[in-house]
Amino acid sequence: MLEALRAGERVKRILVARGSRLQGSLADILDAAKAGGVPVRWVERQELDKVGLHHQGVAAQVEGYAYASLEDCLARARRQDEPALLLALDAVQDVHNLGSLLRTAEAIGVHGVLLPKHRAAGVTATVRKASAGAVEHLCIAQVTNLNRALDDLKKAGLWIVGLDMAAERVYDEIDWRMPVVLVVGSEGRGLSRLTRETCDLLVRLPMGGKVDSLNAAVAGSIVLYTVWRMRNKA
Amino acid sequence: MLEALRAGERVKRILVARGSRLQGSLADILDAAKAGGVPVRWVERQELDKVGLHHQGVAAQVEGYAYASLEDCLARARRQDEPALLLALDAVQDVHNLGSLLRTAEAIGVHGVLLPKHRAAGVTATVRKASAGAVEHLCIAQVTNLNRALDDLKKAGLWIVGLDMAAERVYDEIDWRMPVVLVVGSEGRGLSRLTRETCDLLVRLPMGGKVDSLNAAVAGSIVLYTVWRMRNKA
Repeated sequence: MLEALRAGERVKRILVARGSRLQGSLADILDAAKAGGVPVRWVERQELDKVGLHHQGVAAQVEGYAYASLEDCLARARRQDEPALLLALDAVQDVHNLGSLLRTAEAIGVHGVLLPKHRAAGVTATVRKASAGAVEHLCIAQVTNLNRALDDLKKAGLWIVGLDMAAERVYDEIDWRMPVVLVVGSEGRGLSRLTRETCDLLVRLPMGGKVDSLNAAVAGSIVLYTVWRMRNKA
Repeated sequence: MLEALRAGERVKRILVARGSRLQGSLADILDAAKAGGVPVRWVERQELDKVGLHHQGVAAQVEGYAYASLEDCLARARRQDEPALLLALDAVQDVHNLGSLLRTAEAIGVHGVLLPKHRAAGVTATVRKASAGAVEHLCIAQVTNLNRALDDLKKAGLWIVGLDMAAERVYDEIDWRMPVVLVVGSEGRGLSRLTRETCDLLVRLPMGGKVDSLNAAVAGSIVLYTVWRMRNKA
């Protein structure tokens, strides 16, 4: 929180639990808030629980993330004169996984990210942090109905490729130079049935040991790098 | 904790904070402990803080992880008649990152993992969980001095390849079919100077966006899959 305040992140206000002792890191946080002109409010402890990110009786309320539209994402690909590369996340709920994956997406220049509005993590303060700031440079669209959005993208000429452990095709044996949406499923259950059916193509990461899946952020990142490297070498 | 007990994980005993109310998940945990013959002890709340994994007044003490030796790791490669592939982690401290990376390592059949004994995460209950059980199938050696261990492996004929964002060589442009130790650095600072100097070769993941590094587990996993796929296709 102190880093966020010092880095001038979009903190709207600081909430402090009544009865907290003004010492140590709390004193530092209040100093930083004062220096940055961020208002401080004293509230009942239970009110803090409603705020996502809080620690030892202090919480920071940050401004909401400015989501983009699907069209913004596609426009970015056109502007860069590249075959579109979008990432769609089907119900990824772990904020650290989401942050790590967005960090990789930004690192390889993904044109846009689709996040479902329901039953999935959005861009919270923890996601921002786990993404190492990547979310500020990414074009992220929140969609009410992921499958409908994928259908729209299909009509716009993109291939919908889902990452599915039961797929026949292996991830690095297809041609990734076409305009494409990579769809990554949730940590526990992978892609939902409907999303799997919406995909034009499913690919898997081969597994050579006893575990039967990878961390979702790791799996998505491995495929993203493969796409990028294949496009760069072509 | 309930899952661990039900799955028959190596739980030595359950500690419960005095004054906890016997209802809901606590009651379920105590039932499962009884069913599995795991002893339960009632302790002062502050004693729970000494145990790594605890939640809402209950903690599980698990048996320590059975580390292997470097020689065990090399023997595994010989037994499988493959060029050795080891993973060495230089000061990775985040237990979720460590778990995710070990999960990938197991999935591609890494012969052994080197963890430094000091200033780095060991195999804790959280690491086990984040690894999705991979640690039980991996050969993991804890070493007092990582650089000395790398020197020993160098003498045994392995190439020491460090992942370093400032390297000139790109990770997928070298020949990974040689016997190799991949060295991955800590989340914040990458490889230590001494470790970097111990490496025979440094490789980087190219970055095409604004963020200047990837999550450590993601970065290591991308390289591991590249090594494995290259060896499989060769």
